[in-house]
Amino acid sequence: MAKLVLIRHGQSEWNLSNQFTGWVDVDLSEKGVEQAKAAGKAIAEHGLQFDYAYTSVLKRAIKTLHYALEECDQLWIPEFKTWRLNERHYGALQGHNKKKAAEKYGDEQVHIWRRSYDVLPPLLGADDEGSAAKDRRYANLDPRAIPGGENLKVTLERVIPLWQDEIAPKLLDNKNVIIAAHGNSLRALSKYIEQISDEDIMNLEMATGQPVVYTFDDKLNVLDKEKYDID
Amino acid sequence: MAKLVLIRHGQSEWNLSNQFTGWVDVDLSEKGVEQAKAAGKAIAEHGLQFDYAYTSVLKRAIKTLHYALEECDQLWIPEFKTWRLNERHYGALQGHNKKKAAEKYGDEQVHIWRRSYDVLPPLLGADDEGSAAKDRRYANLDPRAIPGGENLKVTLERVIPLWQDEIAPKLLDNKNVIIAAHGNSLRALSKYIEQISDEDIMNLEMATGQPVVYTFDDKLNVLDKEKYDID
Repeated sequence: MAKLVLIRHGQSEWNLSNQFTGWVDVDLSEKGVEQAKAAGKAIAEHGLQFDYAYTSVLKRAIKTLHYALEECDQLWIPEFKTWRLNERHYGALQGHNKKKAAEKYGDEQVHIWRRSYDVLPPLLGADDEGSAAKDRRYANLDPRAIPGGENLKVTLERVIPLWQDEIAPKLLDNKNVIIAAHGNSLRALSKYIEQISDEDIMNLEMATGQPVVYTFDDKLNVLDKEKYDID
Repeated sequence: MAKLVLIRHGQSEWNLSNQFTGWVDVDLSEKGVEQAKAAGKAIAEHGLQFDYAYTSVLKRAIKTLHYALEECDQLWIPEFKTWRLNERHYGALQGHNKKKAAEKYGDEQVHIWRRSYDVLPPLLGADDEGSAAKDRRYANLDPRAIPGGENLKVTLERVIPLWQDEIAPKLLDNKNVIIAAHGNSLRALSKYIEQISDEDIMNLEMATGQPVVYTFDDKLNVLDKEKYDID
């Protein structure tokens, strides 16, 4: 019975300053580092052993993975980084303070952008400042795959190919997998895994740094879902 | 003109306590962490950009890579970990204090084990305590490939397939590669790259944490070899 562990990255500097982050590559805060280490300790205490690790190409998730794997002495396992696990791209809202955005666009509009399943945020053009199209890490990515802004639906549509092509085959082969990623890319993955409706998914919250552990049967049905306490 | 950077891991806890290390998975010392960060700063100052990273399955090399990549803001590049870059396996000497080994076996014998190209150290059996055959990270490795002890010649013979199959093709494709590994696996690689004789290679010393930068022509001849200063 294969296990899959999802970890949302620890607190970032922009979680702290209440800014829309998306694909901006901000670092972990000190608290975020402690959360990542606590995740690794919890995994060590439960004796979980992994065969493969996946993460995004954003340092707050990569570092969360590294701190967690170091604490459970599994830094040596194969690790794959992919844009498909990146946070939801927040379009032109990226970098903006959430409170100021609410003052500018109105509470209700910002609430819709944050909480609706299929409404897109204001988009960022490929030539706009801060566009991922200018970032070397996406230089080998089909330009049409580089988003100018995403809702959860679009995020899910780019996460699921990774699940189907890479992660599901490993779980079906009885390998244990750890994924360190982001609030919305993990929400998308959870939606698919647990078959949660479009309406209910926005109520699913993942705590930063808390390992969520799925156990699957040989058809990838969820046998068990457990959350490890972190200090 | 592709570039290859070699970094020998920063000082380890057993460098400090003067023990034979080999495949034992000891951590970096505090000084080793600082050296790794300094390597990354030097790379950032020289503006070097990488496409791929390689390291061993031992944490002192993996962590050196991570600290260095973080300092030059390239933690997102693809990273591959392989036993082929592990330190030379020191056989039954692993874990022993170098001075005490000299008292037990004689200075000359220990000198031969440390400095000859093709003399093997006392071997560790697959069932002996500390054998890599018992370590989960080598569970998918052909048991006949798991060494009981290596000289530099054997180390070179297992490093070169990685060079030929993975690293050389990328350099020929004009990609820049960074390798964080160990004194003897990097010595073996340098021997092959620079065509150094069996007699001369044991005099090649690599300083911990210091980036060694090769520039190649399109036939993988070395055009330039530079060492970056680290503070």
